[in-house]
Amino acid sequence: MTPPGQVRHLLSLDDLEPAQFHALLDSAEQFLKTGRPLVGPLQGRIVASIFFEPSTRTRVSFEIAARRLGADLVNLDVMCSSRKKGEADRDTLSTLAAMGASIFILRTGVAGLPAELAGHLAPDCGLISAGEAEFAHPTQGLLDMLTIRQHKPDTDKLRVAIVGDIAHSRVARSAVRGLRLMGISDIRLIGPESFLPDDGEMPGTFQGNDLASGIDGADVVMALRIQRERMKLAEMPESADYFQRFGLTEKKLAALAPDAIVMHPGPINRGIELDDEVADGPRSVIREQVRNGVAVRMAVLTTVANSLAESDRAGRA
Amino acid sequence: MTPPGQVRHLLSLDDLEPAQFHALLDSAEQFLKTGRPLVGPLQGRIVASIFFEPSTRTRVSFEIAARRLGADLVNLDVMCSSRKKGEADRDTLSTLAAMGASIFILRTGVAGLPAELAGHLAPDCGLISAGEAEFAHPTQGLLDMLTIRQHKPDTDKLRVAIVGDIAHSRVARSAVRGLRLMGISDIRLIGPESFLPDDGEMPGTFQGNDLASGIDGADVVMALRIQRERMKLAEMPESADYFQRFGLTEKKLAALAPDAIVMHPGPINRGIELDDEVADGPRSVIREQVRNGVAVRMAVLTTVANSLAESDRAGRA
Amino acid sequence: MTPPGQVRHLLSLDDLEPAQFHALLDSAEQFLKTGRPLVGPLQGRIVASIFFEPSTRTRVSFEIAARRLGADLVNLDVMCSSRKKGEADRDTLSTLAAMGASIFILRTGVAGLPAELAGHLAPDCGLISAGEAEFAHPTQGLLDMLTIRQHKPDTDKLRVAIVGDIAHSRVARSAVRGLRLMGISDIRLIGPESFLPDDGEMPGTFQGNDLASGIDGADVVMALRIQRERMKLAEMPESADYFQRFGLTEKKLAALAPDAIVMHPGPINRGIELDDEVADGPRSVIREQVRNGVAVRMAVLTTVANSLAESDRAGRA
Repeated sequence: MTPPGQVRHLLSLDDLEPAQFHALLDSAEQFLKTGRPLVGPLQGRIVASIFFEPSTRTRVSFEIAARRLGADLVNLDVMCSSRKKGEADRDTLSTLAAMGASIFILRTGVAGLPAELAGHLAPDCGLISAGEAEFAHPTQGLLDMLTIRQHKPDTDKLRVAIVGDIAHSRVARSAVRGLRLMGISDIRLIGPESFLPDDGEMPGTFQGNDLASGIDGADVVMALRIQRERMKLAEMPESADYFQRFGLTEKKLAALAPDAIVMHPGPINRGIELDDEVADGPRSVIREQVRNGVAVRMAVLTTVANSLAESDRAGRA
Repeated sequence: MTPPGQVRHLLSLDDLEPAQFHALLDSAEQFLKTGRPLVGPLQGRIVASIFFEPSTRTRVSFEIAARRLGADLVNLDVMCSSRKKGEADRDTLSTLAAMGASIFILRTGVAGLPAELAGHLAPDCGLISAGEAEFAHPTQGLLDMLTIRQHKPDTDKLRVAIVGDIAHSRVARSAVRGLRLMGISDIRLIGPESFLPDDGEMPGTFQGNDLASGIDGADVVMALRIQRERMKLAEMPESADYFQRFGLTEKKLAALAPDAIVMHPGPINRGIELDDEVADGPRSVIREQVRNGVAVRMAVLTTVANSLAESDRAGRA
Repeated sequence: MTPPGQVRHLLSLDDLEPAQFHALLDSAEQFLKTGRPLVGPLQGRIVASIFFEPSTRTRVSFEIAARRLGADLVNLDVMCSSRKKGEADRDTLSTLAAMGASIFILRTGVAGLPAELAGHLAPDCGLISAGEAEFAHPTQGLLDMLTIRQHKPDTDKLRVAIVGDIAHSRVARSAVRGLRLMGISDIRLIGPESFLPDDGEMPGTFQGNDLASGIDGADVVMALRIQRERMKLAEMPESADYFQRFGLTEKKLAALAPDAIVMHPGPINRGIELDDEVADGPRSVIREQVRNGVAVRMAVLTTVANSLAESDRAGRA
C-alpha cells in the first residue's frame, strides 16, 4: 500500500486510500491559508497540460496552481496543433518527457486513455486526470468534497442530493466516490429516467425522478451541468421542460435542511439547471468551489511532485 | 472625485480626469526611462487577458507589460474554448476572480459589455478595456497622446488631422477625447462621407472630404486603419480608389507643417492608408507608438493595481 | 569571418563555419551536463515565437529552452490571429521588436522568408529558423549531429543512410550539411525515385532505391517522416507499400553495423517509416534526439543573445 501523500498518478478517486484522500484535502486547506509558498515546491519542474477536449476553467485552474508552485507550464492545445500531424498520444507524452516534462495534466473524451498513457510513463513521471470521458474527474471530486467539509465538518450524517444528468457525468461519478470516502451514506441521485445510472452501477444510492421528494431535508444539493456534447439527440431534454422539472429555484429549495448548500461544477446554464436567484443566492457555494479548485490542484501537484522525488531517491538508493 | 492615480477600471478616456490622464502619461514616460522595475509591482497578481475579438499587437503588448511588472498572466482564447460551452461572460469573470485573478483585460465587439462586466466585479478587481466595439480603446488613446506629447510638447496650438474611417473607429473616438484632454482644439476629421461621424457626435471638430485642405499645415496626421471587419458591404471603398483620394504619400504630405509627424495604429494596410515611403519615412512615428504602447500599459496596470491595493487598505480600515 | 560563438541569425547550417558549428554542439553538451543555468543568460530578453506552420514538438522545445534561460516568451499563433487582419510579416516583426522582442523564432512554409525578414531586422535583433519550407531546419540538424557525435565520436569513418522522402525534407537538407561539417563523406540517400533529390543538388552522396544495399554496413540510419502535407497527390505512396519497401524492421536492420543507431525526427508514423519494435528498440535514439533538441536550442539562443550583446557593445564603442 502506498503511504499517505504518495500519489504518482491521479486518475480517479477510486485510486485513493481514505488516508491519502484526506491528506490531499488537508493539504489544500493549508494552501488556502498560506497562499503561494515562499519556495515553489515545483521550481524547475515542467508541467505539461494536454487538453483533448475544450475547457476554460479546469485548464486555467491547473495553470494558476502550477505557476503558484513555481513550475514551468507548457500548454498543448492538442485540438489545433499535433493532431494535424496525426502524432500518436503515447509518442506525444514520451516526447514531452524527453524534453524534461515530468507531470502531465490530461483531459480526454476517450475512456481508459489516462490509465493507458500513465502505464507507459517512465517512473520519474506522473499523470493527473483533468477529466476522462464520462468516468472520472478526480480533482473536481476533491474540490467538491473540500467544499462540503468546510461547510459541514460533521459529514457522517449528511444527506446529499445530486440532480441532473448523472449518467453522462464524470463529476457525479467522482462525487459519489468522494462522498463515500467521507463516510456519507445518504446519497440521492435525481434526474429524468434517461439520466439515471445503469442498474447496479451505484449501489446503495437512492435514485428517483421526483425533485421535491429527492431534495427533501437535504444538506447539500449538487446540480450537474447539462452536457449536450455528451448526449445523443433522443436523450436531450427541452430546456424549458428540464428547468420546470429539475431546475433549482428558491421556491423548490424551501424543502432543504436549514443551512443547506447548493453546488454546481460550472459553467452554469442559467435558467436550465438553476436560476439566477439560486446561483447568486446565500446558499450557493459555487464560487467557493472554484476557489477551492486552485488549492486542491496545488495539493495534488505537490503530492505528485513529492512522490516523484521520493521515487527518485528510492531508485538511487 | 477619485484622486489622481486612483483608477480601478479603465473603460474609456471619458472616465479620466485631466490630472489622472496626465499622471498616466507621466508614469509611462518613467517606464520608458527605467525599463522593467526591480521589484515587480504586480508580483503575485494574476492578470487575465480575455479577447473576444482577434488581436496580435494589443494582446502581446499587454502581455509584455504585465510580465515586466511581475504579474502571472492567464490568457483566455475565448473564441476557441469557453464559448463552445456557452459559458456566460459574467460567470467567466467571476470564475477567474474566484481563482485569484484581480485585473481583467478585455476586448469585445459588444458595446457596453466592459461597463456591464466591470459593474459586476468585486471591489478587489479591476477591468481594463483593450478595445470596445467602435467606441473606446483607451490604452491606444493614451499611447497616441504620449507619442504626440513627446514630439510636440507645446500641445495647445497643435493642428491634428485624423484621416480615414472615423465612423467605425474606436481609435478615433479615444484619440479625439485624448486630444481634448491635452487642450488641442484644432481637430480635423477627414474621410469619405460614409466614414465621417454622425452629426453632433464630435462637436467642435472640422469635418471634410478633401484630404489636401484637411491636412494643410497640420502638425500631426493620424491615418486610421480600414476596418473591413466593421463595415457593411455598401460602405466598403475600392482600395485603389481610397488610396487615390485618402492614402498618404510623400507628395500629398508636402502640405504639412515642418516637423509634422505621421501616425497609424497598425496593423498598416500598405498601399491603402499609406505607402511604404511614408510608413518607413522620417515623419513616421509608427514604431514609437508601438514602443509607447508597452509603457502606457505598464502605467495603466500599475495604476489599477495600486488602486486595488488602496481600496483593500480602505476596506480593512 | 565571424568569430566562433558569434551567430546573430541562424537560418541554415550553410551559414555556419565549422568552428561555429562545433562550438554550438559543445555548448549544447554543457547544457546537458549542467541543466538550467543559475543566472539566466536571457533574463529580461523577450523571445517571440512565430509559427506559420503547425508544430508541437519544435515549438515546445524552443519554449522550454527559452524559459530555462530566463527569457520572457511571447507566442504568436499566427494561423489564428494576425493573419485574419492581413498584417504583413515584416510589420509583425518590427512591431514585436518595437515592443522589446529581440530574438525571433520563425517557422514558415515560404522559402526565403526567414532570410528576407532577417535582412530587415535592426542590428539588435536576431532570427532563428525553426523550419523553412523544404529547405532548412538548422536546429534539427544540430540536434541530429549532436546525437550522432555522442554515440559515434569517431565521425570521419561513419557510414550514414538517410531513408525516405529526401526531396521534400528540410530535415534531410540540414542533416546532409551537418554530416559534411562533421567530416562524414559516406552518405547514402535511399528512397523511391520521386523522393530522391534533383540531379546535382547533393553531389558526392550515394543515391538509390534499394533499402537493403543502401543500409548495408551503415552505422547510422535516419528515417525521415512522410510529409503528406508537402507532397502532390501523384507522389504519395501507399502506406503499406512504402512500409514494405522502405519501412524499418528489426529483420531488415540486421544488415547494419554492430552498435548502429536508428534516428527519426518525429513525430513517427508507426507502421509506415518504422515499426514499434524498431522505434522502441535498443538501437533507437529517438528520445535522445528530443532531449538533445532542448539543449541545442539553449545553445543557439545563448549564442544569438551573446552575439546581440556583443554587437550592442560594439555599436556603443
